[in-house]
Amino acid sequence: MNWTLPEILPPCAETFRRAQARQAQLTKPPGSLGQLEGLALRLVAMQASERPVLERVWISVFAADHGVAEAGVSAFPQAVTREMCRNFVRGGAAISVLARQIGAALEVVDVGVIEPLEPGAGIVDARVGSGTFNFTQGPAMSGTQLDRALAAGAEAAARAAGFGAQLFIGGEMGIANTTSATALACALLGIEPERLAGPGTGLDDAGVRHKREVIETALWLHSPAGCGPLEILCRLGGFEIAALTGAYLSAAAASIPVLVDGFIASVAALLAVRLQPGCADWLIYAHRSAEPGHRLILEAVRAEPVVDLAMRLGEGSGAAVAVPLLRAACALHNEMATFAEAGVSSA
Amino acid sequence: MNWTLPEILPPCAETFRRAQARQAQLTKPPGSLGQLEGLALRLVAMQASERPVLERVWISVFAADHGVAEAGVSAFPQAVTREMCRNFVRGGAAISVLARQIGAALEVVDVGVIEPLEPGAGIVDARVGSGTFNFTQGPAMSGTQLDRALAAGAEAAARAAGFGAQLFIGGEMGIANTTSATALACALLGIEPERLAGPGTGLDDAGVRHKREVIETALWLHSPAGCGPLEILCRLGGFEIAALTGAYLSAAAASIPVLVDGFIASVAALLAVRLQPGCADWLIYAHRSAEPGHRLILEAVRAEPVVDLAMRLGEGSGAAVAVPLLRAACALHNEMATFAEAGVSSA
Repeated sequence: MNWTLPEILPPCAETFRRAQARQAQLTKPPGSLGQLEGLALRLVAMQASERPVLERVWISVFAADHGVAEAGVSAFPQAVTREMCRNFVRGGAAISVLARQIGAALEVVDVGVIEPLEPGAGIVDARVGSGTFNFTQGPAMSGTQLDRALAAGAEAAARAAGFGAQLFIGGEMGIANTTSATALACALLGIEPERLAGPGTGLDDAGVRHKREVIETALWLHSPAGCGPLEILCRLGGFEIAALTGAYLSAAAASIPVLVDGFIASVAALLAVRLQPGCADWLIYAHRSAEPGHRLILEAVRAEPVVDLAMRLGEGSGAAVAVPLLRAACALHNEMATFAEAGVSSA
Repeated sequence: MNWTLPEILPPCAETFRRAQARQAQLTKPPGSLGQLEGLALRLVAMQASERPVLERVWISVFAADHGVAEAGVSAFPQAVTREMCRNFVRGGAAISVLARQIGAALEVVDVGVIEPLEPGAGIVDARVGSGTFNFTQGPAMSGTQLDRALAAGAEAAARAAGFGAQLFIGGEMGIANTTSATALACALLGIEPERLAGPGTGLDDAGVRHKREVIETALWLHSPAGCGPLEILCRLGGFEIAALTGAYLSAAAASIPVLVDGFIASVAALLAVRLQPGCADWLIYAHRSAEPGHRLILEAVRAEPVVDLAMRLGEGSGAAVAVPLLRAACALHNEMATFAEAGVSSA
């Protein structure tokens, strides 16, 4: 594999300290804005600005199909990957509505839907193949494909940087991709599929059992213990998951704060952090998904997500929903008066 | 007491059913938007509209002082009540920033700050007295004062209705008002002060112990077991808490959805629901406060709040922070395409 890991610098500690000192003077009991205070300070440090701004938000939804879908691990037929991508750009999907709502730029990146997406506004062709190979029978992708998928993510981050994005959100679409993400998480964390496999888009108990068995088969075939993250990604990944990993690393390298969506996105974030631990400083986890395994992934990356709304849709939707809370955190930090400015007595 | 409880009608069940049927057809796995789905449907029913809208949001912050402040139960001096009200209208407080951020109308209602607020834009004079009486020595207010405080809340709801508000938020400001709210909750729920008393704006352990003893003294003096909610409010309340209760009841009677803020607002909501159980259908609980007793209040009203950000500021700030999530819920419900419209295969 030839993809070069980008260099990631830490957020600005000096701006953080100055902003923290001012935050302690704002007209509120210390700490009374809870998580919003820490979020504002993290954005201060990432943007190296005492007045962080999240006006320009960029969303790349990476779409790809999964060979393992043929094992019957999803509640939806595989054609839905492509159908939903059309829905994304036509404006009828959840992420389309939310992107409008928050005024974000939205693009759909085809990294390997089985039948290519029709070219059109909002569609980026970065195809790596026509879906991955069924990883219960062999590696999901070749090393070359992995390189290209990671690069597709990096290119999305570069487009976001060109746009002047102050926040990067990666979404994903791919029927069967919770199966891939669960297998990856099991391999990366050494956790049994029984503890991580969940209903995804809506499997019943028998469906979840079957999905778990499919993952067990894949883990038995690939015996990933001792493999590095890229090798694991190659064997069990999806093109869109690899693209998310590449995008997170490249956004961090470009000093763009990243808002991580749910279960699948968090597995991509875990991969990014394993590859470059410094990436963690640039990742904010938006929400806790209803997919039961998400809790374990969030613990592994020591994340306290912003909201917990029992969402489990993907597409970047949980991240988009959380954007106004980050904006509120910034506005409070930027615009509140200090005790001295307002003539208010302190404690 | 002469205040007449307003009649409260239930939200529209028929519109709810129609909207629920359409929601099941939207292009997402059923239930995958989690709490946002239920919130949208509740707003559908309250607004009796299949396409609920939260453009016009009204915030009334009720401010008053508390006689019990002289018992040393707050981390801040009593002068802060008045000082913060000036900060609210000048734009430097958290609620001022958040109101701007969400485009809400904001008014500050003086229901009994010790020294009257200076008249000015954004200030409403609805004074009931110069702070309550110290309830460790006698009833906090007279029956006439309670009537007038409830009416002050009702008048705020009437102004909101005149504005065409699609959502009502009540905030509060009053040094020592977590002591009053805690005493009220103990009396209403029959819970020991030890389980409910918390740090409020930032008491240390010794401060919380003292606050608990002050509340125990008040409960011993007033022995509220067997008293009705209005009698309890009279003995242990605050003018701003009574005003919130009146506002919630009147907003519900005017078919305006209410977004309840944190600990103190939830105690006012508990009072409103005890007075008129039908009020509950009109209340959405915005957040779980870091004030430890809030959990018990939320359980008592069977509420699952929208966010849990460890905020503990009051002013209506937790509610204002949650508004964009309700707007996202409405936008998703209103604008997402159905499977048929988008040509997407269903499960």
